[in-house]
Amino acid sequence: MSDHFEQRRAECQARVNAALDACLPAAEIIPRPLHTAMRDAVLRGGKRLRPLLCYAAAEAVGVPDERVDAPAAAVELLHCYSLVHDDLPCMDDDEFRRGLPTIHRIYGEETALLAGDALLTLVWEVLATHPSLSGRNDARVALIELFAQCAGSAGMVGGQELDLHGGPAPDQAELEHAYRAKTGGLFRAAVLAPVCVQPETPSNLRHALERFGDALGLAFQIRDDFKDKEADAQAQTADDSARLPSWVARLGEEAARERLAELVGAMQEACGEFGAGGDGLRWLAGFINESLSGIAAAGA
Amino acid sequence: MSDHFEQRRAECQARVNAALDACLPAAEIIPRPLHTAMRDAVLRGGKRLRPLLCYAAAEAVGVPDERVDAPAAAVELLHCYSLVHDDLPCMDDDEFRRGLPTIHRIYGEETALLAGDALLTLVWEVLATHPSLSGRNDARVALIELFAQCAGSAGMVGGQELDLHGGPAPDQAELEHAYRAKTGGLFRAAVLAPVCVQPETPSNLRHALERFGDALGLAFQIRDDFKDKEADAQAQTADDSARLPSWVARLGEEAARERLAELVGAMQEACGEFGAGGDGLRWLAGFINESLSGIAAAGA
Repeated sequence: MSDHFEQRRAECQARVNAALDACLPAAEIIPRPLHTAMRDAVLRGGKRLRPLLCYAAAEAVGVPDERVDAPAAAVELLHCYSLVHDDLPCMDDDEFRRGLPTIHRIYGEETALLAGDALLTLVWEVLATHPSLSGRNDARVALIELFAQCAGSAGMVGGQELDLHGGPAPDQAELEHAYRAKTGGLFRAAVLAPVCVQPETPSNLRHALERFGDALGLAFQIRDDFKDKEADAQAQTADDSARLPSWVARLGEEAARERLAELVGAMQEACGEFGAGGDGLRWLAGFINESLSGIAAAGA
Repeated sequence: MSDHFEQRRAECQARVNAALDACLPAAEIIPRPLHTAMRDAVLRGGKRLRPLLCYAAAEAVGVPDERVDAPAAAVELLHCYSLVHDDLPCMDDDEFRRGLPTIHRIYGEETALLAGDALLTLVWEVLATHPSLSGRNDARVALIELFAQCAGSAGMVGGQELDLHGGPAPDQAELEHAYRAKTGGLFRAAVLAPVCVQPETPSNLRHALERFGDALGLAFQIRDDFKDKEADAQAQTADDSARLPSWVARLGEEAARERLAELVGAMQEACGEFGAGGDGLRWLAGFINESLSGIAAAGA
């Protein structure tokens, strides 16, 4: 059922990579270290999951790919800036990202901080000027409002803060609130971008996209908890006592597997609203579901 | 001649402070430490010079105050985020700002980094949603494009990078290019914002505003060099060898005084394009000119 989108995945990744390459300043333009760091942070690779979600959601509501090239690139810029800042010594102090030394290790902390700031500023320039939205200022403003709310203190950045100071004993609702903000913010931006471009999208489809993006974002983060579990157990020190524990650490592997199955069910239910155009979303639900099987097998 | 604007200064400061207070999330909203840090960074005070420039430019081209409340607040948010990030230990490692401990000293480095990111994200939400621009999506998009270009890697952030790695022996053109980007970026955004709101502004007035903002930004930064001169001489260490010297340190006090006089002349020339509406701009030129007299007296 999702073969169609699996074939399209490389095509969508190529689309967004081309859009990103075109919107980033050339490395030869002064200041070169800053522009080199920005390009490295974005173009060193990645699954492009958020852009894929954006293209899949567009297909589900009948918006052509080229109409979401700008938000697909913008959501990836937001993701990449957040990684550069998260990796800084004053945050997670990570040494490697996508198999290479982190941006601050290559270009220095000051340039890494500035590269993140410049990427976060480029987001809005792309949404305000990308030629694919020429003459569509209402769509541009709707996208900018959506993206700013999803990325700011009520979204991703707020979720990062909750992660830092959420305390050691949150309940499930508090944990999921933090996950929805921190990880879910950009998933929400990606999945709702096509509705900004096509405001006449029927409300039942809009709501189905929202449910899908919400479940995918939460499932993606809980799935990541399993991967990070061992590293977390080793890295946790007294200094981290204010930090939020992971869903898995707090509520247990069995409960996490059950919650993931529930969330995959919610994604499949949401896909029921879409016809053949929903194949991309079904592929994404399947991608999470397969990870879930791996986790279930490992736990068995 | 400029009494009118001097009386209006407190009124404009009150306008922008009210707009800032209204657009910042309440400190009681979760995550509280982040929202408290954001409010502290913006509302602890400041001359509001960039908003004053925005209101003065609006008056000069006949745009009512309320039509530039959004860009006046947005340019100050950009200024405040840049101060929070500049003060971080990995940048200037400053301990005090506006007479109080810097944001990272009060709230921690992680929350300071995130507060800067959240303020930089709020800028675009304000421009996209502020009620004073209701129904004016063309103006919103024009403002967002202008502000992103002035604040990003071709503007303020790029200028910061040039400041860090500009090398010890730039010529005057290289120095002024860096100053125009780093400090001039936000002055340009402030002075041209009224033209985005009123695109039918005659091109001679637009060009006069550009010349005025350019000269004011450069003069403001050179004037600051005099204030910072002693501190710089003490703080300069081997680690700073890649940093750009100040205009005054590189080209001398006498040349700096002459350049400032030239720039004040350029501001006065630009004001010649405006009638009585230009009084606010004349007041700002006078503000710089008075500082210049102080410097000349000190040097005499």
